[in-house]
Amino acid sequence: MDERTILTRLRRTAAHPAARGLVDDVALLDGLVITHDSIAEGVHYRPEDPPHSVGWKLMAVNLSDLAAKGAAPVGALLSLTLSGDSDWEEHFLDGIEAAAEQFGMPLIGGDTIALPDGAPRVLGLTAIGRASAATPGRNGATAKDALWLIGTVGDSTAGLAILQQDAKAAGLLVDAYRRPIPLLAAGQAIAPHSHASMDVSDGLLLDASRMADASQCGLEMDLASVPLSSAFVAERGTDVAARLFACTGGDDYALLAALPPELDPFTLPLPSGTTMARVGTFTSAHAGLALRFGDRKVPLPESLGHEHRGHIASPMGDRP
Amino acid sequence: MDERTILTRLRRTAAHPAARGLVDDVALLDGLVITHDSIAEGVHYRPEDPPHSVGWKLMAVNLSDLAAKGAAPVGALLSLTLSGDSDWEEHFLDGIEAAAEQFGMPLIGGDTIALPDGAPRVLGLTAIGRASAATPGRNGATAKDALWLIGTVGDSTAGLAILQQDAKAAGLLVDAYRRPIPLLAAGQAIAPHSHASMDVSDGLLLDASRMADASQCGLEMDLASVPLSSAFVAERGTDVAARLFACTGGDDYALLAALPPELDPFTLPLPSGTTMARVGTFTSAHAGLALRFGDRKVPLPESLGHEHRGHIASPMGDRP
Repeated sequence: MDERTILTRLRRTAAHPAARGLVDDVALLDGLVITHDSIAEGVHYRPEDPPHSVGWKLMAVNLSDLAAKGAAPVGALLSLTLSGDSDWEEHFLDGIEAAAEQFGMPLIGGDTIALPDGAPRVLGLTAIGRASAATPGRNGATAKDALWLIGTVGDSTAGLAILQQDAKAAGLLVDAYRRPIPLLAAGQAIAPHSHASMDVSDGLLLDASRMADASQCGLEMDLASVPLSSAFVAERGTDVAARLFACTGGDDYALLAALPPELDPFTLPLPSGTTMARVGTFTSAHAGLALRFGDRKVPLPESLGHEHRGHIASPMGDRP
Repeated sequence: MDERTILTRLRRTAAHPAARGLVDDVALLDGLVITHDSIAEGVHYRPEDPPHSVGWKLMAVNLSDLAAKGAAPVGALLSLTLSGDSDWEEHFLDGIEAAAEQFGMPLIGGDTIALPDGAPRVLGLTAIGRASAATPGRNGATAKDALWLIGTVGDSTAGLAILQQDAKAAGLLVDAYRRPIPLLAAGQAIAPHSHASMDVSDGLLLDASRMADASQCGLEMDLASVPLSSAFVAERGTDVAARLFACTGGDDYALLAALPPELDPFTLPLPSGTTMARVGTFTSAHAGLALRFGDRKVPLPESLGHEHRGHIASPMGDRP
């Protein structure tokens, strides 16, 4: 049984009648949006990452899932493994606490468990949010819908690449890697109008194709339209290679929304400074992803993103 | 910073005003009781345990937390680490699914993550229940309250001891170790009448003393009154040593309730077959635990139970 089979099976189990309110990345219960994401040392973060940044990111990963559903943070349950290095844990909690304060996400429960000596940490968070007027799934896009990207992509991956060259590097891109900002207000403004929405965590191309597959649509994307930050452009440029790097790196905390083509999301009550662009169009053929750069066709890269994470609760089944 | 300091700090963070509904082991939000418990390979279960039993127990551990609060199961989010042995995961899911069906706890979400090769698994579950009329904390016991134990203790630990001698052993005690039964209906009948309640997971003596400490009471317990199963008695007998073994082993899925002394819980609408006994009395002195066997004083054993698990969400702070 491979990972895809496991996810398919979990979704079958999760299709129990009592789970009727189910919406893919998150569960919906009594107006509460509930999600759980874990991160593992050596897979989702580097053992040498500062522990406060790991705590901050664990909060941000889960807040980004709430943002994609337009939910407002209510509370979180932390699942903390203790590996005997309590200095690490103290600084990890600094990061949890700072993000909790920053984004109004109080810690309301959880557990700590011991791990065998030397075992990699596994850190989990259950995030609970209050649903807004509508909670879009990832499977509701229809042909001719526009795919919008809220936020930029590539900064975090570029920051990681810099750190891999020089562990003591600093700068905007390193900051973006260590201290991502979930787009809660933008998500609350846009999600209720979206046919489908999700956050970008594993790579823009991979996550966008997951949305298309779950919606049984095809998707045409234009790399030239993908918004990049000035810091990213200064480091990597804007050619196809740079854009493919940005669109497959993941760890982005950006949002994807499938919007009716006639809706101009800039008319919505967005927070100032929201970067947003139309990056693609859904098509009727359930034909996967087609990529171009302006007028030029671009072959799909070998990897569309990172496949080391899966969400269980999908009524449709998306590509694991 | 040791584990106690970490827990204290987490509780301080969890004392955020928005977490007002907080009740120790669980969080209470909009009439939903929410809890999260994780288990780690090599700490909370043996690598050689059959994977279906690990899945069953992960559900049971969390259902037992709901039972202690009198909550009815609503849904669960599974956090599953994938270590590359998909046979193991398949049978683990068999156990999750079986317990989900048995106890009416549908899986409504969660995530899967990859782990580094060879890393011990960490498996987590967020359990969500519907609160009953009252959701007792662990800190509400008052002097003269009676401490009642619902269920028996020792079976699971006796089963584990048998398996450690003979990995292929079978029998009632091995079954109790592998397939524990959370006392949901009894909890729903008793919890709304309890000043304090919690489940017994780390050892009866340890958990009872935690309830006393959190309630700023002392506690006198009589080992002779602790209910034991026939299978346990056949294997271990009923002397003080056997009883101390049963009362410190943990992994019990029994419930503890602090009840007003005038209340006879046998008058409550309990499921048939509920084993229940008054095992102690709370006292006004905040003087810890005093143990006897009938008329005879018994010194406290060196270890009251297992300290490898901590719950974060306590407004009072209990002994970690």
